[in-house]
Amino acid sequence: MINFLKVKPIDKALEIIDNHSTPLLRTVNIKTIDSVSRTVSKPITSSSNLPNFDRSTMDGYAVRAIDTYGASQSQPSYLNLVSEIKMGAIPKINLKVGQAARIFTGAMVPRSADAIVMIEYTELIDSSLIEIIKPVAPGENIIKVGEDVQVNEPVFTVGHLIRPQDIGGLLALGITKTPVFKRPKIGVISTGDELINPEIEPAKGQVRDINTYTISALIQKYGGESITFGINKDIFEVQLETAKKALSECSIVVISAGSSTSSRDLTSQVISSLGEPGILMHGLAHKPGKPSIIGSAQDKLIFGLPGNPVSAMIIFELLVKRAIQNILCSPKELIAPTKATLTADIPSINGREEHVPVKLFNSQSGDLMAEPVFGKSNLIYTLIKSNGIVVVPINKSGIYSGDLVDILIN
Amino acid sequence: MINFLKVKPIDKALEIIDNHSTPLLRTVNIKTIDSVSRTVSKPITSSSNLPNFDRSTMDGYAVRAIDTYGASQSQPSYLNLVSEIKMGAIPKINLKVGQAARIFTGAMVPRSADAIVMIEYTELIDSSLIEIIKPVAPGENIIKVGEDVQVNEPVFTVGHLIRPQDIGGLLALGITKTPVFKRPKIGVISTGDELINPEIEPAKGQVRDINTYTISALIQKYGGESITFGINKDIFEVQLETAKKALSECSIVVISAGSSTSSRDLTSQVISSLGEPGILMHGLAHKPGKPSIIGSAQDKLIFGLPGNPVSAMIIFELLVKRAIQNILCSPKELIAPTKATLTADIPSINGREEHVPVKLFNSQSGDLMAEPVFGKSNLIYTLIKSNGIVVVPINKSGIYSGDLVDILIN
Repeated sequence: MINFLKVKPIDKALEIIDNHSTPLLRTVNIKTIDSVSRTVSKPITSSSNLPNFDRSTMDGYAVRAIDTYGASQSQPSYLNLVSEIKMGAIPKINLKVGQAARIFTGAMVPRSADAIVMIEYTELIDSSLIEIIKPVAPGENIIKVGEDVQVNEPVFTVGHLIRPQDIGGLLALGITKTPVFKRPKIGVISTGDELINPEIEPAKGQVRDINTYTISALIQKYGGESITFGINKDIFEVQLETAKKALSECSIVVISAGSSTSSRDLTSQVISSLGEPGILMHGLAHKPGKPSIIGSAQDKLIFGLPGNPVSAMIIFELLVKRAIQNILCSPKELIAPTKATLTADIPSINGREEHVPVKLFNSQSGDLMAEPVFGKSNLIYTLIKSNGIVVVPINKSGIYSGDLVDILIN
Repeated sequence: MINFLKVKPIDKALEIIDNHSTPLLRTVNIKTIDSVSRTVSKPITSSSNLPNFDRSTMDGYAVRAIDTYGASQSQPSYLNLVSEIKMGAIPKINLKVGQAARIFTGAMVPRSADAIVMIEYTELIDSSLIEIIKPVAPGENIIKVGEDVQVNEPVFTVGHLIRPQDIGGLLALGITKTPVFKRPKIGVISTGDELINPEIEPAKGQVRDINTYTISALIQKYGGESITFGINKDIFEVQLETAKKALSECSIVVISAGSSTSSRDLTSQVISSLGEPGILMHGLAHKPGKPSIIGSAQDKLIFGLPGNPVSAMIIFELLVKRAIQNILCSPKELIAPTKATLTADIPSINGREEHVPVKLFNSQSGDLMAEPVFGKSNLIYTLIKSNGIVVVPINKSGIYSGDLVDILIN
């Protein structure tokens, strides 16, 4: 237990998580239409060209480009209108010199035609003759076979999180079933003698267990399946038995420790007793997440989150989310800061990173403003009254009203 | 049809949507633990104080603050240790002058105690005597009854989108069932003679219908229930019948028009035939969303989206999302720009807003960079290869490499 109580900065904690994440999830083939927010588990390549025929991108006339060269307002080209291409059908026609065919956006370009003249640059003289006032180059206003995607082109890599547009891309290629990772099972254990089920009216001294449910909701948000193991009393044997069960059934285990020191010590003892290597980190240079624990056994990560719900949620977003992303083979997250102007000073202590809830709003001029929601860090309603988090960097002793700061929106 | 083909800027289109949105959704009471991403439909107030007892926020000793005044390293105060407060229980003790009780974070403060001395500022002399080296003020390290939430305090307003932390806030108050709006049913109609079901291998000239599924996925993303009405041929009577059915069953109807002009004209005829007031806008000053239609009948909005999937998705995000938010009584969306540095010039035309897909990545120094994904606007894979959209404002003829631009992440 060499790391015991030696607080670590967040980047060190993330490095520990990365080094102890073992992606072992199984693949399931599910209907593509149900795959939003799932993660691609096998590389997907295109089995066909998209489109599989030359398509017009405009409403107008399919022509041989050469027949339009030199056309202008004063010296138009005249072409014989020989056909109208039906949407969704193979054109029967093969354009000869001086011929044109009426065509619409999305229709198949007829043989021998190599460009589309937009309707705006034409005039219909009579039912069989059109006037063209602007030349087109070969290929103009046409999407060629395979221009969207080529046959055998890799289209999705392992770890890709499927979005609505990806459903479209898969279905456009006829991929109606998609290989995704099984949702990782994440075990949720609440501990603490003071906790009761939320349905019960608490006597004085008792507190409703909410960590089980907020942590479950976060697990689902990040693509996991939460398996809950109820409220566990602060008794070593009770907690150890629950933790062993959770470890055998789940890919990651999250214990939210009771709020007392003795309860937190118990969590660390339980994690140490689950197997090698045991505790990897105990203590984070972070407010309000200092009493966080990272452990590992059976190639699985085990987290000890602080008991107070605000800290538990913030540390989940910082650490557990990363572990879930790792076993889902997610690509490294984009750093895409949202900036806001702080409306009040936030004092902090150099040497720890601090996360402070803020209420974001737009000023009359439309600027994004961040008003700190002060309050003791264990007030759950500070998180509810806020819609963002501002990060006070580890090397700063405060940030000040008027500063343009990085915001996490939640 | 005075608005026919007169293109409107986006803010005008949003104004039309706002003026024709009628929130008529019913309330359902669902389990709070299942309510993430649902929308609160009735104001929720707290029925109790949170916490319902004075709680310690620290591990240490409950004291009468007055007994610690003047305590210092050189002149400590000495108090008699008379009890240890059990977690989750009502303390039996009533502190007398000169007494202290051991207490842990989250435990109930005993009667007559009014502050907690942190363990760090104490020393245990023997089992019944402690030394205190720093004074505490009354109230220090205690969360008072109702300090998190007061009884009868409004906690959630109508339209609030429930997040994981809100689940915690509701359960902490014992609110195990929450009133939320029924998910709005949004009808999805695909039209176009060229479309086939994605499961079918397309013959040349045919294209798989993907709008039904991408639009459904977006509807779910924004809290709706999608009701699909299949692929409809470009025959007025067929489409009108489908549209009438959709309008009677759904709160909003979305028609993705076929890509040809005649097909788009048909959509507008169908929308006009559904009742008063009919077409409200036809044509948007936007690329690639120009041929968008907004209509209304039976106090419901009907959208005609462009047939090409890229435009359809972008216009959904711009317009239909707003209509869904309106009937869900969502508060006005926060304008929270993410900025990135553009890596290449994007030419545009003054007088229309343009949305261009970009690939976002972090430079070696960690800056967010946006690389335009060029390609004809109807290539679905431009949206798939991108993870953001850059907006070229309506009054600009282009944006340039090196510009710091606003990004929508997707």
